[in-house]
Amino acid sequence: MNFIEKLQKIQRKNRSLLCVGLDTDPAKLPRHLGSSKGALLEFNWAIIDATSDLVCAYKLNLAFYESLGERGWRTLKETLAVIPRNVITIGDGKRGDIGNTAEQYANALYDDLGFDAATVNPYMGYDSVEPFLRSDRHCAFVLALTSNEGSSDFQRLNIGGRPLYERIVRAAVKWNTKENLGLVVGATHPKELQPIRKLAPTVPILIPGIGKQGGDLESAVRYGADKNGRLAIINASRSVLYASTGKDFATAARNEALKLRDQIQLYRDKYFS
Amino acid sequence: MNFIEKLQKIQRKNRSLLCVGLDTDPAKLPRHLGSSKGALLEFNWAIIDATSDLVCAYKLNLAFYESLGERGWRTLKETLAVIPRNVITIGDGKRGDIGNTAEQYANALYDDLGFDAATVNPYMGYDSVEPFLRSDRHCAFVLALTSNEGSSDFQRLNIGGRPLYERIVRAAVKWNTKENLGLVVGATHPKELQPIRKLAPTVPILIPGIGKQGGDLESAVRYGADKNGRLAIINASRSVLYASTGKDFATAARNEALKLRDQIQLYRDKYFS
Repeated sequence: MNFIEKLQKIQRKNRSLLCVGLDTDPAKLPRHLGSSKGALLEFNWAIIDATSDLVCAYKLNLAFYESLGERGWRTLKETLAVIPRNVITIGDGKRGDIGNTAEQYANALYDDLGFDAATVNPYMGYDSVEPFLRSDRHCAFVLALTSNEGSSDFQRLNIGGRPLYERIVRAAVKWNTKENLGLVVGATHPKELQPIRKLAPTVPILIPGIGKQGGDLESAVRYGADKNGRLAIINASRSVLYASTGKDFATAARNEALKLRDQIQLYRDKYFS
Repeated sequence: MNFIEKLQKIQRKNRSLLCVGLDTDPAKLPRHLGSSKGALLEFNWAIIDATSDLVCAYKLNLAFYESLGERGWRTLKETLAVIPRNVITIGDGKRGDIGNTAEQYANALYDDLGFDAATVNPYMGYDSVEPFLRSDRHCAFVLALTSNEGSSDFQRLNIGGRPLYERIVRAAVKWNTKENLGLVVGATHPKELQPIRKLAPTVPILIPGIGKQGGDLESAVRYGADKNGRLAIINASRSVLYASTGKDFATAARNEALKLRDQIQLYRDKYFS
Protein backbone atom coordinates (compact mmCIF):
# COMPACT_ATOMS: atom_id res chain seq x y z
CA MET A 1 0.00 0.00 0.00
CA ASN A 2 1.40 3.41 -0.80
CA PHE A 3 1.68 6.23 1.70
CA ILE A 4 -1.30 8.27 0.53
CA GLU A 5 -3.59 5.23 0.64
CA LYS A 6 -2.40 4.30 4.11
CA LEU A 7 -2.95 7.86 5.33
CA GLN A 8 -6.44 8.11 3.88
CA LYS A 9 -7.40 4.73 5.27
CA ILE A 10 -6.42 5.55 8.85
CA GLN A 11 -7.91 9.06 8.65
CA ARG A 12 -11.19 7.42 7.63
CA LYS A 13 -11.04 4.57 10.13
CA ASN A 14 -10.23 6.74 13.17
CA ARG A 15 -12.19 9.72 11.79
CA SER A 16 -9.13 11.75 12.63
CA LEU A 17 -6.66 14.24 11.23
CA LEU A 18 -4.90 14.34 14.60
CA CYS A 19 -1.24 13.45 15.00
CA VAL A 20 0.29 13.11 18.45
CA GLY A 21 3.91 14.19 18.72
CA LEU A 22 5.87 11.80 20.91
CA ASP A 23 8.48 14.44 21.62
CA THR A 24 8.99 12.99 25.03
CA ASP A 25 11.20 14.95 27.38
CA PRO A 26 12.60 12.72 30.15
CA ALA A 27 12.60 15.75 32.47
CA LYS A 28 8.83 16.08 32.15
CA LEU A 29 7.71 12.54 32.90
CA PRO A 30 5.15 12.04 35.68
CA ARG A 31 7.09 11.66 38.90
CA HIS A 32 5.62 8.26 39.82
CA LEU A 33 7.24 6.67 36.76
CA GLY A 34 10.63 7.33 38.32
CA SER A 35 13.75 7.91 36.25
CA SER A 36 14.66 4.33 35.47
CA LYS A 37 15.86 3.43 32.00
CA GLY A 38 12.46 2.07 31.11
CA ALA A 39 10.40 5.06 32.27
CA LEU A 40 10.42 6.85 28.90
CA LEU A 41 9.25 3.75 27.06
CA GLU A 42 6.61 3.05 29.68
CA PHE A 43 5.34 6.60 29.24
CA ASN A 44 5.24 6.42 25.44
CA TRP A 45 3.59 3.02 25.60
CA ALA A 46 0.83 4.33 27.86
CA ILE A 47 0.26 7.39 25.64
CA ILE A 48 0.05 5.23 22.51
CA ASP A 49 -2.25 2.78 24.26
CA ALA A 50 -4.52 5.64 25.32
CA THR A 51 -4.66 7.45 21.97
CA SER A 52 -4.03 5.09 19.04
CA ASP A 53 -7.72 4.88 18.11
CA LEU A 54 -7.95 8.68 18.01
CA VAL A 55 -5.07 9.60 15.72
CA CYS A 56 -4.00 9.18 12.13
CA ALA A 57 -0.31 9.47 12.92
CA TYR A 58 2.42 9.69 15.52
CA LYS A 59 5.32 12.04 14.97
CA LEU A 60 8.52 11.24 16.83
CA ASN A 61 10.97 14.09 17.08
CA LEU A 62 14.39 12.45 16.90
CA ALA A 63 16.10 15.14 18.97
CA PHE A 64 14.45 13.95 22.16
CA TYR A 65 15.78 10.43 21.65
CA GLU A 66 19.21 11.37 20.33
CA SER A 67 19.87 13.46 23.39
CA LEU A 68 19.80 10.17 25.35
CA GLY A 69 22.40 8.53 23.12
CA GLU A 70 22.38 4.80 22.47
CA ARG A 71 19.64 4.19 25.00
CA GLY A 72 17.48 6.83 23.33
CA TRP A 73 17.93 5.17 19.98
CA ARG A 74 16.79 1.89 21.51
CA THR A 75 13.76 3.59 23.10
CA LEU A 76 12.87 5.10 19.72
CA LYS A 77 12.83 1.64 18.15
CA GLU A 78 10.93 0.11 21.03
CA THR A 79 8.36 2.91 20.86
CA LEU A 80 7.86 2.38 17.14
CA ALA A 81 7.31 -1.32 17.78
CA VAL A 82 4.30 -0.52 19.98
CA ILE A 83 2.51 1.67 17.41
CA PRO A 84 -0.22 -0.19 15.49
CA ARG A 85 0.92 -0.85 11.92
CA ASN A 86 -2.02 0.92 10.33
CA VAL A 87 -1.14 4.24 12.01
CA ILE A 88 1.29 6.51 10.14
CA THR A 89 4.68 7.11 11.78
CA ILE A 90 6.66 10.26 11.00
CA GLY A 91 10.36 10.55 11.85
CA ASP A 92 10.70 14.24 12.57
CA GLY A 93 14.41 14.89 12.13
CA LYS A 94 14.37 17.74 9.59
CA ARG A 95 17.34 16.14 7.87
CA GLY A 96 19.09 17.43 4.79
CA ASP A 97 22.58 16.79 3.40
CA ILE A 98 24.44 16.19 0.14
CA GLY A 99 23.12 13.29 -1.94
CA ASN A 100 25.26 10.34 -0.76
CA THR A 101 24.73 11.42 2.85
CA ALA A 102 21.00 12.10 2.56
CA GLU A 103 20.82 8.54 1.27
CA GLN A 104 22.25 7.36 4.61
CA TYR A 105 19.67 9.40 6.52
CA ALA A 106 16.88 7.91 4.42
CA ASN A 107 18.28 4.45 5.20
CA ALA A 108 18.31 5.26 8.91
CA LEU A 109 14.74 6.55 8.96
CA TYR A 110 12.98 4.29 6.49
CA ASP A 111 14.97 1.05 6.79
CA ASP A 112 16.66 0.83 10.18
CA LEU A 113 13.88 2.57 12.12
CA GLY A 114 11.02 1.77 9.75
CA PHE A 115 9.23 5.13 9.69
CA ASP A 116 6.53 5.68 7.06
CA ALA A 117 7.58 9.29 6.59
CA ALA A 118 10.27 11.82 7.45
CA THR A 119 10.56 15.59 7.67
CA VAL A 120 13.30 17.15 5.53
CA ASN A 121 14.91 20.57 5.34
CA PRO A 122 15.01 21.93 1.77
CA TYR A 123 17.79 24.53 2.15
CA MET A 124 20.35 22.30 0.39
CA GLY A 125 18.09 21.74 -2.63
CA TYR A 126 16.76 18.86 -4.66
CA ASP A 127 19.61 16.37 -4.31
CA SER A 128 19.31 16.59 -0.52
CA VAL A 129 15.60 15.65 -0.64
CA GLU A 130 15.59 13.17 -3.51
CA PRO A 131 16.82 10.11 -1.52
CA PHE A 132 13.75 10.51 0.72
CA LEU A 133 11.47 10.24 -2.33
CA ARG A 134 12.69 6.91 -3.60
CA SER A 135 9.50 4.92 -2.98
CA ASP A 136 5.81 5.73 -2.81
CA ARG A 137 5.52 3.74 0.41
CA HIS A 138 7.29 6.61 2.16
CA CYS A 139 6.60 10.32 2.28
CA ALA A 140 9.04 13.21 2.68
CA PHE A 141 7.53 16.25 4.40
CA VAL A 142 9.44 19.31 3.19
CA LEU A 143 9.70 22.26 5.60
CA ALA A 144 7.91 25.20 4.00
CA LEU A 145 6.78 27.66 6.67
CA THR A 146 7.65 26.42 10.15
CA SER A 147 5.75 27.12 13.35
CA ASN A 148 8.50 28.93 15.27
CA GLU A 149 9.28 32.62 15.62
CA GLY A 150 12.49 32.26 13.60
CA SER A 151 10.42 31.29 10.56
CA SER A 152 10.28 35.03 9.80
CA ASP A 153 14.07 35.35 9.63
CA PHE A 154 14.49 33.79 6.17
CA GLN A 155 11.38 31.87 5.10
CA ARG A 156 9.46 35.07 4.33
CA LEU A 157 12.25 36.83 2.44
CA ASN A 158 11.04 38.49 -0.72
CA ILE A 159 12.06 36.70 -3.94
CA GLY A 160 10.77 38.73 -6.87
CA GLY A 161 7.66 39.80 -5.00
CA ARG A 162 6.87 36.41 -3.46
CA PRO A 163 8.11 34.85 -0.20
CA LEU A 164 10.88 32.24 -0.16
CA TYR A 165 8.61 29.57 1.33
CA GLU A 166 6.31 29.89 -1.68
CA ARG A 167 9.27 29.26 -3.95
CA ILE A 168 10.02 26.12 -1.98
CA VAL A 169 6.40 24.96 -2.17
CA ARG A 170 6.42 25.42 -5.95
CA ALA A 171 9.66 23.45 -6.28
CA ALA A 172 8.40 20.71 -3.96
CA VAL A 173 5.23 20.27 -6.02
CA LYS A 174 7.44 19.70 -9.08
CA TRP A 175 9.54 17.13 -7.19
CA ASN A 176 6.38 15.20 -6.29
CA THR A 177 6.34 12.78 -9.20
CA LYS A 178 5.46 9.72 -7.11
CA GLU A 179 2.75 11.08 -4.81
CA ASN A 180 5.14 10.77 -1.90
CA LEU A 181 5.94 14.34 -0.91
CA GLY A 182 4.26 16.45 1.73
CA LEU A 183 4.77 19.89 3.26
CA VAL A 184 5.23 21.23 6.77
CA VAL A 185 3.33 24.44 7.52
CA GLY A 186 2.91 25.71 11.09
CA ALA A 187 -0.60 26.27 12.45
CA THR A 188 0.82 29.53 13.76
CA HIS A 189 0.51 30.93 10.20
CA PRO A 190 -3.23 30.60 9.51
CA LYS A 191 -3.26 33.22 6.72
CA GLU A 192 -0.58 31.49 4.73
CA LEU A 193 -2.10 28.00 4.86
CA GLN A 194 -4.79 28.77 2.30
CA PRO A 195 -2.51 29.99 -0.51
CA ILE A 196 -0.08 27.14 0.19
CA ARG A 197 -2.90 24.58 -0.04
CA LYS A 198 -3.93 26.16 -3.37
CA LEU A 199 -0.41 25.71 -4.75
CA ALA A 200 -0.30 22.10 -3.53
CA PRO A 201 -3.87 20.83 -3.68
CA THR A 202 -3.14 17.10 -3.43
CA VAL A 203 -0.22 16.73 -1.01
CA PRO A 204 -0.42 15.87 2.68
CA ILE A 205 0.33 18.86 4.87
CA LEU A 206 1.80 18.27 8.32
CA ILE A 207 0.66 21.11 10.57
CA PRO A 208 2.48 21.46 13.88
CA GLY A 209 2.03 24.29 16.35
CA ILE A 210 -1.38 23.44 17.82
CA GLY A 211 -1.58 23.58 21.63
CA LYS A 212 1.43 24.99 23.49
CA GLN A 213 2.59 26.94 20.46
CA GLY A 214 -0.82 28.62 20.13
CA GLY A 215 -1.63 27.73 16.51
CA ASP A 216 -5.16 28.20 15.16
CA LEU A 217 -6.99 24.86 14.97
CA GLU A 218 -9.96 26.05 12.92
CA SER A 219 -7.77 27.50 10.16
CA ALA A 220 -5.56 24.41 10.25
CA VAL A 221 -8.58 22.29 9.35
CA ARG A 222 -10.31 24.75 7.02
CA TYR A 223 -7.26 25.68 4.95
CA GLY A 224 -4.89 22.78 5.66
CA ALA A 225 -7.16 19.97 4.45
CA ASP A 226 -7.62 19.16 0.77
CA LYS A 227 -10.91 19.79 -1.03
CA ASN A 228 -12.40 16.67 0.55
CA GLY A 229 -11.41 17.66 4.06
CA ARG A 230 -8.52 15.19 4.18
CA LEU A 231 -4.71 15.04 3.94
CA ALA A 232 -4.06 17.50 6.73
CA ILE A 233 -2.09 15.96 9.61
CA ILE A 234 -2.54 18.23 12.59
CA ASN A 235 0.05 17.71 15.28
CA ALA A 236 -0.14 18.37 19.01
CA SER A 237 2.71 17.29 21.26
CA ARG A 238 3.12 18.90 24.67
CA SER A 239 -0.58 19.66 25.26
CA VAL A 240 -1.38 15.95 24.96
CA LEU A 241 1.72 14.37 26.52
CA TYR A 242 1.70 16.55 29.60
CA ALA A 243 -2.06 17.10 30.00
CA SER A 244 -1.51 15.78 33.52
CA THR A 245 1.71 15.02 35.35
CA GLY A 246 -0.05 12.78 37.85
CA LYS A 247 -0.89 9.09 37.82
CA ASP A 248 -3.80 9.88 35.51
CA PHE A 249 -1.46 11.15 32.76
CA ALA A 250 -2.65 8.60 30.17
CA THR A 251 -6.34 9.27 30.80
CA ALA A 252 -5.71 12.99 30.68
CA ALA A 253 -3.78 12.58 27.40
CA ARG A 254 -6.68 10.58 25.97
CA ASN A 255 -9.16 13.24 27.02
CA GLU A 256 -7.07 15.97 25.42
CA ALA A 257 -6.58 13.97 22.22
CA LEU A 258 -10.31 13.18 22.12
CA LYS A 259 -11.15 16.85 22.55
CA LEU A 260 -8.82 17.82 19.71
CA ARG A 261 -9.95 14.98 17.42
CA ASP A 262 -13.61 15.88 17.94
CA GLN A 263 -13.02 19.61 17.56
CA ILE A 264 -11.26 18.88 14.27
CA GLN A 265 -14.24 16.73 13.20
CA LEU A 266 -16.62 19.61 13.97
CA TYR A 267 -14.59 21.91 11.73
CA ARG A 268 -14.49 19.23 9.01
CA ASP A 269 -18.29 18.97 9.19
CA LYS A 270 -18.56 22.75 9.09
CA TYR A 271 -16.37 23.29 6.03
CA PHE A 272 -16.42 20.02 4.08
CA SER A 273 -19.88 18.49 4.18
CA MET B 1 39.82 27.15 26.63
CA ASN B 2 37.34 28.54 24.15
CA PHE B 3 36.74 27.10 20.70
CA ILE B 4 38.68 29.69 18.72
CA GLU B 5 41.75 29.32 20.94
CA LYS B 6 41.61 25.54 20.68
CA LEU B 7 41.31 25.75 16.90
CA GLN B 8 44.19 28.18 16.53
CA LYS B 9 46.38 26.13 18.85
CA ILE B 10 45.97 22.89 16.92
CA GLN B 11 46.28 24.63 13.55
CA ARG B 12 49.60 26.02 14.74
CA LYS B 13 50.84 22.80 16.36
CA ASN B 14 50.06 20.52 13.40
CA ARG B 15 50.70 23.30 10.86
CA SER B 16 47.43 22.28 9.31
CA LEU B 17 44.08 23.59 8.11
CA LEU B 18 43.10 20.06 7.09
CA CYS B 19 40.04 18.33 8.47
CA VAL B 20 39.41 14.66 7.75
CA GLY B 21 35.78 13.69 7.42
CA LEU B 22 35.12 10.37 9.11
CA ASP B 23 32.01 9.80 6.99
CA THR B 24 32.67 6.11 7.08
CA ASP B 25 30.50 3.97 4.84
CA PRO B 26 30.43 0.34 6.06
CA ALA B 27 29.99 -0.77 2.44
CA LYS B 28 33.35 0.74 1.51
CA LEU B 29 35.61 -0.75 4.18
CA PRO B 30 38.73 -2.63 3.04
CA ARG B 31 37.67 -6.21 2.52
CA HIS B 32 40.25 -7.69 4.89
CA LEU B 33 38.60 -5.93 7.85
CA GLY B 34 35.52 -8.10 7.33
CA SER B 35 32.04 -7.01 8.26
CA SER B 36 32.10 -7.72 11.97
CA LYS B 37 30.54 -5.26 14.38
CA GLY B 38 33.94 -3.86 15.25
CA ALA B 39 35.19 -3.35 11.68
CA LEU B 40 33.96 0.23 11.38
CA LEU B 41 35.58 1.25 14.65
CA GLU B 42 38.81 -0.55 13.73
CA PHE B 43 38.85 1.37 10.45
CA ASN B 44 38.20 4.74 12.07
CA TRP B 45 40.80 4.03 14.72
CA ALA B 46 43.44 3.22 12.10
CA ILE B 47 42.60 6.38 10.11
CA ILE B 48 42.80 8.56 13.22
CA ASP B 49 46.04 6.90 14.28
CA ALA B 50 47.53 7.53 10.85
CA THR B 51 46.43 11.17 10.49
CA SER B 52 45.96 12.85 13.86
CA ASP B 53 49.28 14.73 13.67
CA LEU B 54 48.33 16.10 10.24
CA VAL B 55 44.91 17.59 10.88
CA CYS B 56 43.29 20.39 12.86
CA ALA B 57 39.92 18.65 13.03
CA TYR B 58 37.86 15.56 12.39
CA LYS B 59 34.33 15.95 11.08
CA LEU B 60 31.97 13.06 11.72
CA ASN B 61 28.88 13.01 9.56
CA LEU B 62 26.15 11.63 11.81
CA ALA B 63 24.15 10.12 8.93
CA PHE B 64 26.71 7.37 8.43
CA TYR B 65 26.42 6.31 12.06
CA GLU B 66 22.66 6.76 12.42
CA SER B 67 22.05 4.48 9.49
CA LEU B 68 23.50 1.69 11.68
CA GLY B 69 21.11 2.40 14.55
CA GLU B 70 22.11 1.80 18.15
CA ARG B 71 25.36 0.15 17.17
CA GLY B 72 26.23 3.14 14.99
CA TRP B 73 25.65 5.49 17.88
CA ARG B 74 28.00 3.42 20.00
CA THR B 75 30.63 3.42 17.25
CA LEU B 76 30.32 7.20 17.02
CA LYS B 77 31.07 7.51 20.73
CA GLU B 78 33.90 5.00 20.61
CA THR B 79 35.43 6.82 17.63
CA LEU B 80 35.28 10.15 19.45
CA ALA B 81 37.03 8.55 22.42
CA VAL B 82 40.04 7.74 20.24
CA ILE B 83 40.54 11.28 18.89
CA PRO B 84 43.24 13.21 20.76
CA ARG B 85 41.65 15.88 22.96
CA ASN B 86 43.54 18.75 21.40
CA VAL B 87 42.08 18.06 17.95
CA ILE B 88 38.75 19.73 17.10
CA THR B 89 35.75 17.44 16.62
CA ILE B 90 32.80 18.55 14.48
CA GLY B 91 29.44 16.77 14.66
CA ASP B 92 28.17 17.21 11.12
CA GLY B 93 24.43 16.69 11.46
CA LYS B 94 23.09 19.91 9.86
CA ARG B 95 20.45 20.06 12.57
CA GLY B 96 17.81 22.74 12.96
CA ASP B 97 14.47 22.72 14.78
CA ILE B 98 12.24 24.89 16.96
CA GLY B 99 13.89 26.24 20.12
CA ASN B 100 13.04 23.60 22.73
CA THR B 101 13.94 20.85 20.26
CA ALA B 102 17.15 22.44 18.99
CA GLU B 103 18.12 22.52 22.66
CA GLN B 104 17.83 18.72 22.73
CA TYR B 105 20.01 18.41 19.62
CA ALA B 106 22.62 20.66 21.21
CA ASN B 107 22.53 18.44 24.31
CA ALA B 108 23.00 15.35 22.15
CA LEU B 109 25.95 16.78 20.24
CA TYR B 110 27.76 18.81 22.87
CA ASP B 111 26.94 16.90 26.08
CA ASP B 112 26.12 13.29 25.30
CA LEU B 113 28.60 12.92 22.43
CA GLY B 114 31.02 15.64 23.49
CA PHE B 115 31.68 17.32 20.13
CA ASP B 116 33.49 20.66 20.10
CA ALA B 117 31.33 21.93 17.25
CA ALA B 118 28.24 21.16 15.19
CA THR B 119 26.90 22.08 11.77
CA VAL B 120 23.45 23.70 11.75
CA ASN B 121 20.89 24.47 9.07
CA PRO B 122 19.66 28.09 9.25
CA TYR B 123 16.36 27.74 7.32
CA MET B 124 14.28 27.84 10.53
CA GLY B 125 15.93 31.05 11.75
CA TYR B 126 17.64 32.35 14.86
CA ASP B 127 15.78 30.39 17.54
CA SER B 128 16.79 27.14 15.80
CA VAL B 129 20.49 28.08 15.95
CA GLU B 130 20.65 29.87 19.29
CA PRO B 131 20.83 26.73 21.51
CA PHE B 132 24.04 25.76 19.68
CA LEU B 133 25.60 29.09 20.63
CA ARG B 134 25.21 28.81 24.36
CA SER B 135 28.89 28.59 25.27
CA ASP B 136 32.13 29.78 23.73
CA ARG B 137 33.65 26.34 24.22
CA HIS B 138 31.50 25.15 21.32
CA CYS B 139 31.07 26.44 17.80
CA ALA B 140 28.01 26.25 15.53
CA PHE B 141 28.86 26.15 11.83
CA VAL B 142 25.92 27.64 9.93
CA LEU B 143 25.30 26.33 6.39
CA ALA B 144 25.77 29.25 4.00
CA LEU B 145 26.64 27.95 0.53
CA THR B 146 26.89 24.16 0.47
CA SER B 147 29.11 22.07 -1.80
CA ASN B 148 26.39 20.11 -3.59
CA GLU B 149 24.63 20.75 -6.89
CA GLY B 150 21.33 21.48 -5.13
CA SER B 151 22.95 24.53 -3.51
CA SER B 152 21.79 26.43 -6.60
CA ASP B 153 18.13 25.57 -6.06
CA PHE B 154 17.50 28.05 -3.26
CA GLN B 155 20.76 29.34 -1.73
CA ARG B 156 21.45 31.63 -4.69
CA LEU B 157 17.93 33.04 -4.98
CA ASN B 158 17.93 36.78 -5.49
CA ILE B 159 16.88 38.81 -2.45
CA GLY B 160 16.86 42.48 -3.39
CA GLY B 161 19.81 42.05 -5.72
CA ARG B 162 21.88 39.81 -3.42
CA PRO B 163 21.87 36.02 -3.02
CA LEU B 164 20.05 34.33 -0.14
CA TYR B 165 23.26 32.81 1.24
CA GLU B 166 24.69 36.32 1.66
CA ARG B 167 21.65 37.28 3.71
CA ILE B 168 22.29 34.26 5.91
CA VAL B 169 25.97 35.16 6.29
CA ARG B 170 25.05 38.70 7.35
CA ALA B 171 22.55 37.39 9.89
CA ALA B 172 25.01 34.81 11.21
CA VAL B 173 27.67 37.47 11.76
CA LYS B 174 25.16 39.39 13.91
CA TRP B 175 24.36 36.26 15.91
CA ASN B 176 28.07 35.77 16.66
CA THR B 177 28.24 37.63 19.95
CA LYS B 178 30.40 35.03 21.74
CA GLU B 179 32.97 34.19 19.05
CA ASN B 180 31.43 30.76 18.69
CA LEU B 181 29.83 30.80 15.28
CA GLY B 182 31.30 29.59 12.01
CA LEU B 183 30.11 29.15 8.44
CA VAL B 184 30.01 26.28 5.97
CA VAL B 185 30.99 27.19 2.39
CA GLY B 186 31.72 24.51 -0.21
CA ALA B 187 35.11 24.52 -1.95
CA THR B 188 33.08 23.96 -5.11
CA HIS B 189 32.23 27.68 -5.04
CA PRO B 190 35.68 29.32 -5.23
CA LYS B 191 34.36 32.67 -6.53
CA GLU B 192 31.94 33.10 -3.66
CA LEU B 193 34.44 32.34 -0.89
CA GLN B 194 36.20 35.70 -1.13
CA PRO B 195 33.10 37.91 -0.68
CA ILE B 196 31.84 35.64 2.10
CA ARG B 197 35.19 35.91 3.94
CA LYS B 198 35.00 39.69 3.59
CA LEU B 199 31.56 39.74 5.23
CA ALA B 200 32.79 37.48 8.03
CA PRO B 201 36.48 38.26 8.50
CA THR B 202 36.95 36.64 11.91
CA VAL B 203 34.84 33.48 11.91
CA PRO B 204 36.04 29.93 11.23
CA ILE B 205 34.88 28.69 7.82
CA LEU B 206 34.40 24.96 7.32
CA ILE B 207 35.08 24.19 3.68
CA PRO B 208 33.96 20.77 2.44
CA GLY B 209 34.05 19.58 -1.15
CA ILE B 210 37.80 19.01 -1.66
CA GLY B 211 38.70 15.70 -3.26
CA LYS B 212 35.86 13.57 -4.66
CA GLN B 213 33.57 16.57 -5.01
CA GLY B 214 36.19 18.43 -7.06
CA GLY B 215 36.47 21.64 -5.06
CA ASP B 216 39.34 24.04 -5.65
CA LEU B 217 42.01 23.72 -2.94
CA GLU B 218 44.00 26.83 -3.83
CA SER B 219 40.94 29.10 -3.61
CA ALA B 220 39.83 27.38 -0.43
CA VAL B 221 43.09 28.43 1.22
CA ARG B 222 43.49 31.83 -0.44
CA TYR B 223 39.95 33.06 0.15
CA GLY B 224 38.75 30.80 2.94
CA ALA B 225 41.47 31.66 5.46
CA ASP B 226 41.37 34.84 7.53
CA LYS B 227 43.89 37.65 7.01
CA ASN B 228 46.52 35.69 8.90
CA GLY B 229 46.04 32.54 6.85
CA ARG B 230 44.11 30.80 9.61
CA LEU B 231 40.54 29.83 10.61
CA ALA B 232 39.77 27.89 7.45
CA ILE B 233 38.98 24.24 8.11
CA ILE B 234 39.34 22.40 4.84
CA ASN B 235 37.63 19.04 4.79
CA ALA B 236 38.36 15.96 2.72
CA SER B 237 36.48 12.74 3.38
CA ARG B 238 36.31 10.06 0.71
CA SER B 239 39.64 10.87 -0.96
CA VAL B 240 41.44 10.19 2.33
CA LEU B 241 39.33 7.37 3.78
CA TYR B 242 39.35 5.30 0.62
CA ALA B 243 42.78 6.25 -0.76
CA SER B 244 43.35 2.50 -0.84
CA THR B 245 40.97 -0.34 -0.21
CA GLY B 246 43.79 -2.78 0.47
CA LYS B 247 45.66 -3.68 3.64
CA ASP B 248 47.67 -0.48 3.23
CA PHE B 249 44.56 1.71 3.63
CA ALA B 250 45.89 3.56 6.68
CA THR B 251 49.26 4.31 5.11
CA ALA B 252 47.54 5.43 1.92
CA ALA B 253 45.20 7.66 3.95
CA ARG B 254 48.22 9.18 5.71
CA ASN B 255 49.95 9.83 2.41
CA GLU B 256 46.85 11.49 0.99
CA ALA B 257 46.35 13.60 4.14
CA LEU B 258 50.03 14.55 4.13
CA LYS B 259 49.81 15.61 0.49
CA LEU B 260 46.77 17.75 1.19
CA ARG B 261 48.20 19.24 4.39
CA ASP B 262 51.46 20.16 2.64
CA GLN B 263 49.72 21.52 -0.44
CA ILE B 264 47.62 23.72 1.84
CA GLN B 265 50.82 24.87 3.58
CA LEU B 266 52.34 25.82 0.22
CA TYR B 267 49.31 27.96 -0.57
CA ARG B 268 49.46 29.51 2.89
CA ASP B 269 53.10 30.40 2.31
CA LYS B 270 52.22 31.79 -1.11
CA TYR B 271 49.40 34.05 0.02
CA PHE B 272 50.00 34.79 3.70
CA SER B 273 53.70 35.28 4.35
